[in-house]
Amino acid sequence: MATAPQSLPRAVVEHLVRQVVYERLGRSLPRTATAPNPLVVNVSARHCHLTPQAVEALFGQGHQLQVHKWLYQDGQFAAKETLTLIGPRSRVISNLRILGPCRNLNQVELAYTDSISLGFDLPLRISGNIQGTPGCMLMGPAGFFEMNEGVIRALRHVHMHPDDAAFYGVKAGDAMKLKIGGPCGLTLDQLLCRVDPSFKLEVHIDTDEGNACNLQPDTPCELIK
Amino acid sequence: MATAPQSLPRAVVEHLVRQVVYERLGRSLPRTATAPNPLVVNVSARHCHLTPQAVEALFGQGHQLQVHKWLYQDGQFAAKETLTLIGPRSRVISNLRILGPCRNLNQVELAYTDSISLGFDLPLRISGNIQGTPGCMLMGPAGFFEMNEGVIRALRHVHMHPDDAAFYGVKAGDAMKLKIGGPCGLTLDQLLCRVDPSFKLEVHIDTDEGNACNLQPDTPCELIK
Repeated sequence: MATAPQSLPRAVVEHLVRQVVYERLGRSLPRTATAPNPLVVNVSARHCHLTPQAVEALFGQGHQLQVHKWLYQDGQFAAKETLTLIGPRSRVISNLRILGPCRNLNQVELAYTDSISLGFDLPLRISGNIQGTPGCMLMGPAGFFEMNEGVIRALRHVHMHPDDAAFYGVKAGDAMKLKIGGPCGLTLDQLLCRVDPSFKLEVHIDTDEGNACNLQPDTPCELIK
Repeated sequence: MATAPQSLPRAVVEHLVRQVVYERLGRSLPRTATAPNPLVVNVSARHCHLTPQAVEALFGQGHQLQVHKWLYQDGQFAAKETLTLIGPRSRVISNLRILGPCRNLNQVELAYTDSISLGFDLPLRISGNIQGTPGCMLMGPAGFFEMNEGVIRALRHVHMHPDDAAFYGVKAGDAMKLKIGGPCGLTLDQLLCRVDPSFKLEVHIDTDEGNACNLQPDTPCELIK
């Protein structure tokens, strides 16, 4: 079972090409090109993480999530399975994507635009910190699963290998900025650094953030301390 | 017919209170409080501007737009009337608000999140510059109206009185930045300055931009050159 993403992100290819070209030309690399890893910025559309128990309640006993698409972080995937979310005012979001593998908590990550259409307040939380957050009802082909809590807007964050943290001069829990270029560019503050040896350098923002600046694969992005 | 907004924006009240308090205390005003006018930042939800001909086609001969709510700019209002927009892939947006008074062109302003759900590319344009942009079909209670062009994402902009432009040291067509605070704050680049003696100082951003930073009435905002 391969765990590599199906195609290389443009930022990864550009980083490699830049290093090779500067080497061939015998020139010294600009600062960004000396980074140990390319900066990949991905937009996370609304999704959920589920426990094995929730997957069984929704899809049937013994059900295992199927891989739809491998994500940039090793081992993480978008599942083939999707759900219907029923909000506190009986408004609905269809085709909510499940991300795998299963976790030890149930969590739904929405954008504020989603929460306005559902008609409820969405707390801003670090992923995993769901105490006291609103819940919702999930509906799958085999049944319902009630989440008592766990519906959040995930705080924007950057996954970093310790080598990346050293290069940028930050540690886990620090806040960085992400400058995004283009004709409707912006700079995101409060980008939380998450550091782990298993992580590849990747910024996760949500659809509101990605659409505010019309982030495209070729939009220039820069991490700033 | 009163053209004043129904309630004062929080920024206007704060600006007045700040000036009075500093004066009573006999202290000199901080820089932002010396501005000739308060900085009001408003989120424009998707909406459209129509010609009198389009209003008649959609709502019936001789129909005049009714005022639902006065906006901050003098004479501008959200109309009681709403429309259904039918996109190029037959996907629909209901309850599209019309802003009045009528103009001499038809223009629909959407967010990128809207255009993704409609399934088409949305050009970023200065309001009024609609040549070569996509069109759509509008449906009202009295009939249909086909727009051959005019569906855009409006470039973020700030309305300024010449006094405001002088205070900030900018002129019409310049770009400024808007720094928005809070736990998911950001700084918007490429904020277009529009200057006219009839304008009150007001930034217009769309729902993607407002939701990216969870803009609330008490969120601190600052215009930066």
